[in-house]
Amino acid sequence: MEKMLQIKGHIIRDDILKRIDASCVQYNGTYRVLELIVGKAVDDLSSAKIAIEISEEGFNLILNELTNLGVTIPTTEVHAKLKPSEKDKTVPDDFYSTTNHPTEIFLEGKWIKAQNQRMDAVLVVKNDEVFCTKLRDVKKGDLIVCGSEGVRILQEKNGSDEHEFAFMINDVSSERRVELVVKKLAEEMKAIKANNGKIVVVAGPVVIHTGGMDAFQDMIRKGYISGLLSGNALAVHDIERDLFGTSLGVDLDTGKVVKGGHKNHMRAINAVNKSGSISQAVQDGTIKSGIMYELVNHQVPFVLAGSIRDDGPLPDTIMDLIKAQEAYADMVKDAEMVIMLSTMLHSIGTGNMLPSWVKTVCVDINPAVVAKLVDRGSAQAKGVVTDVGLFLTLLNQQL
Amino acid sequence: MEKMLQIKGHIIRDDILKRIDASCVQYNGTYRVLELIVGKAVDDLSSAKIAIEISEEGFNLILNELTNLGVTIPTTEVHAKLKPSEKDKTVPDDFYSTTNHPTEIFLEGKWIKAQNQRMDAVLVVKNDEVFCTKLRDVKKGDLIVCGSEGVRILQEKNGSDEHEFAFMINDVSSERRVELVVKKLAEEMKAIKANNGKIVVVAGPVVIHTGGMDAFQDMIRKGYISGLLSGNALAVHDIERDLFGTSLGVDLDTGKVVKGGHKNHMRAINAVNKSGSISQAVQDGTIKSGIMYELVNHQVPFVLAGSIRDDGPLPDTIMDLIKAQEAYADMVKDAEMVIMLSTMLHSIGTGNMLPSWVKTVCVDINPAVVAKLVDRGSAQAKGVVTDVGLFLTLLNQQL
Amino acid sequence: MEKMLQIKGHIIRDDILKRIDASCVQYNGTYRVLELIVGKAVDDLSSAKIAIEISEEGFNLILNELTNLGVTIPTTEVHAKLKPSEKDKTVPDDFYSTTNHPTEIFLEGKWIKAQNQRMDAVLVVKNDEVFCTKLRDVKKGDLIVCGSEGVRILQEKNGSDEHEFAFMINDVSSERRVELVVKKLAEEMKAIKANNGKIVVVAGPVVIHTGGMDAFQDMIRKGYISGLLSGNALAVHDIERDLFGTSLGVDLDTGKVVKGGHKNHMRAINAVNKSGSISQAVQDGTIKSGIMYELVNHQVPFVLAGSIRDDGPLPDTIMDLIKAQEAYADMVKDAEMVIMLSTMLHSIGTGNMLPSWVKTVCVDINPAVVAKLVDRGSAQAKGVVTDVGLFLTLLNQQL
Amino acid sequence: MEKMLQIKGHIIRDDILKRIDASCVQYNGTYRVLELIVGKAVDDLSSAKIAIEISEEGFNLILNELTNLGVTIPTTEVHAKLKPSEKDKTVPDDFYSTTNHPTEIFLEGKWIKAQNQRMDAVLVVKNDEVFCTKLRDVKKGDLIVCGSEGVRILQEKNGSDEHEFAFMINDVSSERRVELVVKKLAEEMKAIKANNGKIVVVAGPVVIHTGGMDAFQDMIRKGYISGLLSGNALAVHDIERDLFGTSLGVDLDTGKVVKGGHKNHMRAINAVNKSGSISQAVQDGTIKSGIMYELVNHQVPFVLAGSIRDDGPLPDTIMDLIKAQEAYADMVKDAEMVIMLSTMLHSIGTGNMLPSWVKTVCVDINPAVVAKLVDRGSAQAKGVVTDVGLFLTLLNQQL
Repeated sequence: MEKMLQIKGHIIRDDILKRIDASCVQYNGTYRVLELIVGKAVDDLSSAKIAIEISEEGFNLILNELTNLGVTIPTTEVHAKLKPSEKDKTVPDDFYSTTNHPTEIFLEGKWIKAQNQRMDAVLVVKNDEVFCTKLRDVKKGDLIVCGSEGVRILQEKNGSDEHEFAFMINDVSSERRVELVVKKLAEEMKAIKANNGKIVVVAGPVVIHTGGMDAFQDMIRKGYISGLLSGNALAVHDIERDLFGTSLGVDLDTGKVVKGGHKNHMRAINAVNKSGSISQAVQDGTIKSGIMYELVNHQVPFVLAGSIRDDGPLPDTIMDLIKAQEAYADMVKDAEMVIMLSTMLHSIGTGNMLPSWVKTVCVDINPAVVAKLVDRGSAQAKGVVTDVGLFLTLLNQQL
Repeated sequence: MEKMLQIKGHIIRDDILKRIDASCVQYNGTYRVLELIVGKAVDDLSSAKIAIEISEEGFNLILNELTNLGVTIPTTEVHAKLKPSEKDKTVPDDFYSTTNHPTEIFLEGKWIKAQNQRMDAVLVVKNDEVFCTKLRDVKKGDLIVCGSEGVRILQEKNGSDEHEFAFMINDVSSERRVELVVKKLAEEMKAIKANNGKIVVVAGPVVIHTGGMDAFQDMIRKGYISGLLSGNALAVHDIERDLFGTSLGVDLDTGKVVKGGHKNHMRAINAVNKSGSISQAVQDGTIKSGIMYELVNHQVPFVLAGSIRDDGPLPDTIMDLIKAQEAYADMVKDAEMVIMLSTMLHSIGTGNMLPSWVKTVCVDINPAVVAKLVDRGSAQAKGVVTDVGLFLTLLNQQL
Repeated sequence: MEKMLQIKGHIIRDDILKRIDASCVQYNGTYRVLELIVGKAVDDLSSAKIAIEISEEGFNLILNELTNLGVTIPTTEVHAKLKPSEKDKTVPDDFYSTTNHPTEIFLEGKWIKAQNQRMDAVLVVKNDEVFCTKLRDVKKGDLIVCGSEGVRILQEKNGSDEHEFAFMINDVSSERRVELVVKKLAEEMKAIKANNGKIVVVAGPVVIHTGGMDAFQDMIRKGYISGLLSGNALAVHDIERDLFGTSLGVDLDTGKVVKGGHKNHMRAINAVNKSGSISQAVQDGTIKSGIMYELVNHQVPFVLAGSIRDDGPLPDTIMDLIKAQEAYADMVKDAEMVIMLSTMLHSIGTGNMLPSWVKTVCVDINPAVVAKLVDRGSAQAKGVVTDVGLFLTLLNQQL
Repeated sequence: MEKMLQIKGHIIRDDILKRIDASCVQYNGTYRVLELIVGKAVDDLSSAKIAIEISEEGFNLILNELTNLGVTIPTTEVHAKLKPSEKDKTVPDDFYSTTNHPTEIFLEGKWIKAQNQRMDAVLVVKNDEVFCTKLRDVKKGDLIVCGSEGVRILQEKNGSDEHEFAFMINDVSSERRVELVVKKLAEEMKAIKANNGKIVVVAGPVVIHTGGMDAFQDMIRKGYISGLLSGNALAVHDIERDLFGTSLGVDLDTGKVVKGGHKNHMRAINAVNKSGSISQAVQDGTIKSGIMYELVNHQVPFVLAGSIRDDGPLPDTIMDLIKAQEAYADMVKDAEMVIMLSTMLHSIGTGNMLPSWVKTVCVDINPAVVAKLVDRGSAQAKGVVTDVGLFLTLLNQQL
C-alpha cells in the first residue's frame, strides 16, 4: 500500500530524494514526488510530498534516516514508544540509536530535548526527562525509546559565525592552503575566548616531536586552552624534554639521537613517581617547564587516558578506561570547540562523545586520520592535513 | 686517564667501533684500537683491545651500550650494584633499564639469568633470583640493579631455523615480493606447530574489513593459533558480521554501505550483553560463525584490551588496562612466534612485552606502523607491507 | 528575467537539483521546482520543470553543467555555435571543453557524434564530422564549437555487465575485501576475452618488485593482454631481472641487496643497446624471459613513454612525448578495459585519453593514487587499494 | 691465495670492515684485520691492513666498493684500463659506472679529475680529459674506463659550513622539528647568496595548491632563486591562478571548487598559446602576477620538462625529453644548493644529475618521496617531511 510522506527540511542540500531513492532500491520499493517547493534563500527550508510504495521495514528505515537528518515529518508527532530494559546493559532489539545531532522526544504531548547528546547512545526516559545513555549504563527496568516514532532531530542554527567556520572544507587533502585555515581558526578562537567559551585540545606526542610545544605553551599562557585530553605518552615526552632535553631519547634541539637517551623516558616516569603526581612534581620544582608545567601553573585541567602500550604509566594516567571515558566526557561538556592534534586514538575517542554542534578541528599530517574520524560519525570535524608543529607556530602567531 | 677495554662479541656485525666512536664524539673522548681479531666464520666472535680516553660518565655509557649489545667485557665480572627502592614505584636514579635481550646478573660469584625478560623494566633481586619488573610493580625496599657493572647480555643462538627466518628483511617497503615471505612464514609456522610451539596473533579489525577472516578462521581450526590479542573492535565487528552480515554497517559481501546498518554495531554489543559474554553467546547459539566463534569452539584463549575509543564495550573487553597488560603478558609468555596484523596500538603494546628471541612478524599496509614498532625497540620484528586480507588468504593456502 | 528549464535525465542520481542550487548560490540566483516526475524503475529517467532567475553567465554555466551530465534540455536543439581559430594552437575564449562522455553536436538539423572522445579537448568540425581535438593540434581556421548550445551528452547504457562491474566501489580505502574484487574482475576479463575485446594494461615497475611478474607473464601467455603502456623503468627492471636476477640491484628471490648489483641497471640497458632494440634482444637470445620477452613472443604491442628521470633510456623508449602521447592514444583506442597497476604518472596520462565508457581499474597500495586519478576527471576508474604482487597472483589464479 | 689490502679512509664512519665482511659472505671469502689505526680527531683518516682470501671477482667488487667510498688503496695507482666502444650507445661489459662523488682517473702518471660528475654515467677519456658521459651519448670508438683500477673517489671536504648543514638529519619522519630545519636552511641560503652562489629550486604544483606561492614569489624578488626546474603543471596552475583565481578549478582564496572552473586550466593554456610563450604573455600584459611572472620579470631562467600526462602543453614545455634532460643538467651545473619541493618525478630526475657535493634538500609531506630519492642514489639529500606551503612561508620569513 502506498504511504504518503509530507516532509520539510533541507531537501536539496541533504540529498533527501537521493536517500529515499536508495532506500527504495534496497527494499524494492518505488516512490513518486508529488510536490517539491524549494525555499527562496539558500537556508530556507524546502517541503515535499512524496508517495512511497515499500515494505513496512523499508518505510521505517526511511523515517529513521530522515529523522536523523532533521527532516520534519508531521506524522511523527505521536508519543514515543517506550519499552523497559529487561537486564542491565541491554535494551530491546528495536532500540533507537542516537546520532550526535540535537534530538527531541515527543512525550505526553510535548517535545523534550535529550540531554548529554552523543552518538551511539540509547535514550532513557526518567521523570519526564530524556538522557542519552551509554549501553553499559542502562539498568534493568530503564525505559528505552524504541523505533523512530516520536523522535525528531532539530535543525542546527546556521548563524553567521557558523558560516565563517564552514569555510574550512571537509575535503581531506594535503594540497590545501593551510594558512587560510589558520587565519580563520584564530579568529574563531578569539571570538570564543571573548565570550568565555570553552576550547578543549586533544593532543598526541607528535606536538612535542614536531616542535609545536612552544607555541602550545604560549596558547596556554594566553588563556586559550580550557582543557587538555591526551594519553600517557604526551605527558612523559613533555616531562622528559624538561628534565633531560630529549623526547624518547632524541635531542629536541638538534634532532639527533642521544647516546643512552632512550632510558630518559623511564627516568622521567621515575621522577614523577617520586614526587607523587605531575602537579606535585611542578610544585616541588622537579618539573620546571613544558606543557604539563603550564597546565598546572595556569590551573588548566587535563585528563590522561591509559592505553595498552603505556610504559609506566605516570601516576596521573587513568588506566581504568571506564573512568577515563567519563573524565573525557566531563571535560568536553559545554565545549564550544575541540581541536584535535595528531592522535587518532584519542580523537576518535573524543569524537564519539561530542554533539554535532561543537566546532571540531582535526589536524594531522596523515589524511587517513581525518577520514577515519569523519567515517566514525564525527561529520562535523574539519580536517587540516599539515605539519602540526608549523601549524601551531603559525596559529599562535595570530592569537 | 686512558682506560683499557678488552671486548669480545660481534664487533663488525654490530658496528661496535662506530658506536664507541660516536660516544667519544658525544663526550669529547678519544680512542685507539690496539688489536682487532676477526673470527674466521661469519658467526664467530671477534675480539678487540681498545684504549679510551673519556670522562667517567662517557665510559659508563660505553660499557652500558656494549653490554646491551651482548659484548663481553671481562672486567664486568664484578658483583652487580644493588640499591633499595626508597618508595613504591620508584627506583634510584642510576637504575639499570632492561633491553629485550636475554640478560644475566653477576651476584655472589655467579651469573643469574633474569626472568620475565622485557624491555624498559628494572631488575629486582629477590632471594638469589632476578626479575624484570615494571616500574609500577616496584615496592619500597626492593633491591634494584644499578649501573651496568655485573650485567651482561647473552648472545642469542643463531640456529638454522633462525637463518631461514632472518631471510625476511627488516627493510620496510611495499615494493617487495610478499609471496616469498608468505612461503617462508608458512614453513616456520609448520615447524613450530610440529613442536607444539606457541603462535600468538595480535589482530585489528582490518582483518575483517579486508576479508581475511575466512583464512584466519581456517587457521584457528587447523590449530595454528595458540592465542589472540586484540581490542573491542575486532570482536564487535566479527560478531556484527555474523549476526547482520555487516561490519560497521558495510555489507561484507558487496562492500556497500547498508542503509540503517550503522546501528548494527550497537545491536551486536547488545546481543552479547544479553548472553552475558562472548563464550556464552556462542554456547547459547547467538553467535554462529566467525573468528570469536572459532576461538571459543577450539578453546583458543583471547584477550580483548579496552581503549578510550571503545563503544560498549563487550563484557569480555578488559577496561582496566593494568589487568589487560597483565593478561597480554601472560598470553605471550613462552610464545615462539607473534604475528601482528594491522593494529599499531596493540602491536606496540605487545612488542613492549616480548623478549627479543620471539619471532615477530608485523603485517600492515602502512609502512609507518612497522617502522614505529621497530623504532620503539622491537628490533626483532620483521615487517611485511601488504594487504592483510590477501596475505592471510595466501598464508592459509600454504598451511 | 526568469528562465524556464525543462529537463530529462538522472535528476536524482546525479544530484541535478543540488547542482542547480549551488550554481544559484554562486551567481546569486533563485529557482523553483515546478514539476518533478521520478521514473518508476531505478534506471528510468526523471523529468523536471524548473524556473530559474539568474544572470546570463550563470544560466549558461548551468546549461553547460547539465549538458555534461547527460541531461537532455529540449531548448538546446539549436545549431551549435562555430567560430574559427585565429591562430594555430588557439581557440576562441568561449570554446566548449569536452568531457570524457559520449558527446553529440547539433549541426544542420541533426545530431553528430564526436569522434575520438576524450576529456579537455576542443570540438573541431570538419566536413560534417566532429572531432575531439587536443588544443595543440588546432590549426588556424579550424571551426571550433563554442558555448554549450547544440551540444549534448548521451546517457551511457547501463547493461547488466555494467552492473556487475559497478559492484566495485569507487570509495578508496585499504580496508576492503579485495578477493571479491579479484573475482568480479576475472569474470569481466573472461567475458571481454570471449568477445575478442581489448584489455590494455598500464604498469609501473612495482609489478616486478612485488613479484607480480610471474602472474602477469602468465596472463600474457593466456592471451588476456592486448597491449602494455609503461615507461622506461618497467622494461629495464624486467630485463635486468632476466639478465642478472636483480631489480635495481635487489635480488628478487631473496629480497636482499646484491653487492655491486646497482650497476646491473646500466648493464641491462647496455645489453639492449648492443642488440638494437628489445625485440631484437629477444630474437638474438639476449633476453630469455620476463614480461618484455612474453610481449615480444606473443606479438603483444607495447609503448614505453620517456620521463625526465629516465636512465638510458632503452632504444624503445619514446622520448618525444608528443609522439608518446599519440602512441598511447592509439593503444587505448577501442579498448574495453584498462587496468592500471601502480603507476600514477602513466595512469593519469592514460586516464586523460580515455572515454568514460572504458572500464577502468586502478590498483595501487597508496590510496592517494586512485583519488588523484578520479580527481583529474577519470571518474569511471574503480580503485583497488592493495598489494599489486598478491593481486596479480590471485587474479591470474582465476583466469 | 690471500691478498693484502692496505687502505686509508673513514674506515669506522663508513663501515668499511662491515662492508668487506658482507662481500666475503657473498663470495665465500674470509678476511683478517692485521692492523687498524684510528685517527685521533673525528675527521682524521684511519688506516688498516687486511688480508683477504676471496675469488678474483669478489676482490674486484671489494676494490670497487671501497673506491666508491673514497678509500685510498695504494695499489690502485696504476693506469686505468681503457677500452673502445664498439658501437654507438654501448660500452664494454666491464665498464666503470660512476657514482655522484668527485672522481679521479690515473692516466699517464697523474690523477685527472672527471668532469660533469654525475651518477650512472660512464667515463670517456678524450685528449687527457675525462668526462662523465651518459650511455646514450657514447660514440663508437670512444675510450671507456673499465674495471676499477686507476679510479679513485676524493674525500669531500667537511668544512664548518658543511657541519651546520649536516645537522639536518637524513632520517625521514614527519615527527621532527621543522622550525629548526627552516632556521638552518635560511642561514645556509643567506651564506650562499652572499657569495653569489647558485640556488636552484625544483618544484611541483603543490607549491601553489598549498599557498606557498606568495612566499616563493617573494624569494624570487629577493634574489634567492637562481633557476626553477619544473613541469607543465606548475606553470599552468600558476597562470590559471593569475588569470582566473583558481588552480585546477579550485578557488585558492576560499579553497572551494568553482562551478565551471575546471575549464580554466585549458583556458590558461589557450591564453599563453595566443601570446606565443610565457615570457611574451608577461610582456604583453596577459600574465600579471605569480611565480612565472616573477621569474620572467627578474630574469630567472626556468625549464619545464614535459610528461606523458601533460595537457596542452604550454609552448615553453619541452616535450623532447633528451633536450629537457640536457636543459635540466645545464641549470644545475655549478649549483651550490638544490631545493626540491613536492615533486617526486622532477626531484629524482634532477637528483640523477647532481654531484654529491651539491647541498640538496627535499621537502614533501609524503615520507616515501624522500626515501625514494635517497634510495635512487642521491644520498646527500636531506629530507624534510612537512607541509610545503607552511614551510615556504616560514622560510621566507627568515630570509
